[in-house]
Amino acid sequence: MSTLPANLQGYYRWIQKCNGGLKGKEKYHPWSVGKSTVGYLQPWLFQKLKSEFPGIFKVLTKPEAIDSLALDESLTTCEERSAALAGVLAQLREEGVLSGWRNELYPVPTSFHAEPLALVERAAAVHLGIKAYGVHVNGYVETERGVELWVATRSQTKPTWPGRLDHIVAGGQPHGLSPQANVIKECGEEASIPEELARNAQPVGAVSYEEMQEWGLKRDVLFCYDLQLPADFVPEPQDGEVESFQRLPIEEVANIIVNTDKFKDNCNLVIIDFLIRHGFIKPEQEGYLELLAGLRLGPCA
Amino acid sequence: MSTLPANLQGYYRWIQKCNGGLKGKEKYHPWSVGKSTVGYLQPWLFQKLKSEFPGIFKVLTKPEAIDSLALDESLTTCEERSAALAGVLAQLREEGVLSGWRNELYPVPTSFHAEPLALVERAAAVHLGIKAYGVHVNGYVETERGVELWVATRSQTKPTWPGRLDHIVAGGQPHGLSPQANVIKECGEEASIPEELARNAQPVGAVSYEEMQEWGLKRDVLFCYDLQLPADFVPEPQDGEVESFQRLPIEEVANIIVNTDKFKDNCNLVIIDFLIRHGFIKPEQEGYLELLAGLRLGPCA
Repeated sequence: MSTLPANLQGYYRWIQKCNGGLKGKEKYHPWSVGKSTVGYLQPWLFQKLKSEFPGIFKVLTKPEAIDSLALDESLTTCEERSAALAGVLAQLREEGVLSGWRNELYPVPTSFHAEPLALVERAAAVHLGIKAYGVHVNGYVETERGVELWVATRSQTKPTWPGRLDHIVAGGQPHGLSPQANVIKECGEEASIPEELARNAQPVGAVSYEEMQEWGLKRDVLFCYDLQLPADFVPEPQDGEVESFQRLPIEEVANIIVNTDKFKDNCNLVIIDFLIRHGFIKPEQEGYLELLAGLRLGPCA
Repeated sequence: MSTLPANLQGYYRWIQKCNGGLKGKEKYHPWSVGKSTVGYLQPWLFQKLKSEFPGIFKVLTKPEAIDSLALDESLTTCEERSAALAGVLAQLREEGVLSGWRNELYPVPTSFHAEPLALVERAAAVHLGIKAYGVHVNGYVETERGVELWVATRSQTKPTWPGRLDHIVAGGQPHGLSPQANVIKECGEEASIPEELARNAQPVGAVSYEEMQEWGLKRDVLFCYDLQLPADFVPEPQDGEVESFQRLPIEEVANIIVNTDKFKDNCNLVIIDFLIRHGFIKPEQEGYLELLAGLRLGPCA
């Protein structure tokens, strides 16, 4: 029987890993729609968009600031901006720059509830460094031995994070679906959780971060849900994205987070939030407040 | 039967009220110990400390910054600094500047787990604008009708916030006591909650804010606890600080927060955190993420 980690440093390294973008961001070139900065570009992509799409992106220069791009002002509606960006992204895809095409539209947002300024293919969100949203579900069981968390192992054939541990249910938040509806849909698709159970998933907050990834900045806000499951419920992989499910004592989950890199990066933050909200991490532990504050270092809006 | 408020603006005004200090702080004069800024002073107090205690506070001037005070460098230990500040505060008390003396020592902290730089009388925390810590307990019952929250009415004779609604148990965090031990102590003193029940109080996070008050900046971090109470438990006022207790449906509590000023200011933040963590405020509601982010606008460390 493992015990909960006493030292919070092993948790905190995930705050740092998932927020490399907060320090590294000054090397990225902002891009904007009207007055709103909506994303950040790696230098190579900035150069490419600037030189190859001068009709769509205009260069803005300011003294003592890095050059930025602005979407051409002649594109005044969401539809026009989406069409122009779709053309750009189609070319990047053809050139092999963009892979993992999803055929799923993400908003280019200012904030979650505001009308999106444009819609773009999901696979481009990190390249464009736009803010993106997701839902993560902590599926747990209260047993006589204590709390146990259902954990998925991602399929080895998934393009992203193959073989890493994951939440029982998690997914990106596409345009036009409410977070709750998304949770219910993903519960069915990813773990065969029937709708009447999935409806018990309770929203409990959000985490936010800005992670530097190979292709750009992943700037995410994840809505967190707790779903208490009956002891006899067993999830089943449905859509091939999950290899297997296992139910682990919360102490073991905590030790995996602290001692290994097995979980997909952002799952660590959502589970740390769970551990704090359920009292498994305590104010008496040094670094408690810094860990808590670290869960929402990215813009939360 | 009241329903939960649909619009989050009524909650958000408490974020604004409790964080007036974030905007107004530039008018306050920082004071420091060594390299650490530990507090902020209203202009009248800055002038008074500067002119009347030149041996203890040195003036620091920087171009384009407001003047600040530094505790004299000859005071090198916590004991020496505490003694010097005690002399200053005793004079302020004698002059009637400081009232509500508690005979309770608060740390002058950099962060919660770091050794305090000095200890000062609690009544001076807001005047000195130092960071302070507290514990707030959401004492709730799961009934057939839904969640109900125990709410205290503060005594009309309390020097601070007389007659306002409050948590069943809440208290400042004095030096030398763990948050959990403080919760158990306050549970007994304020509401006659026996230790075996109080031990069930579960730490669930923290809120932080910087409120402008009449006498200075209240810069607080409150550790939040959830304590599920048995349906037949009835708290009893013990130390005269509470006039009465009542158990209210969570919908009614939410409407009091949104529509009235009945709760002591900071209780609103802790209950909004409770409402979010328990799914009574949902991601689908406009302003959800901004409200969530607003719960930790003060330095959380």
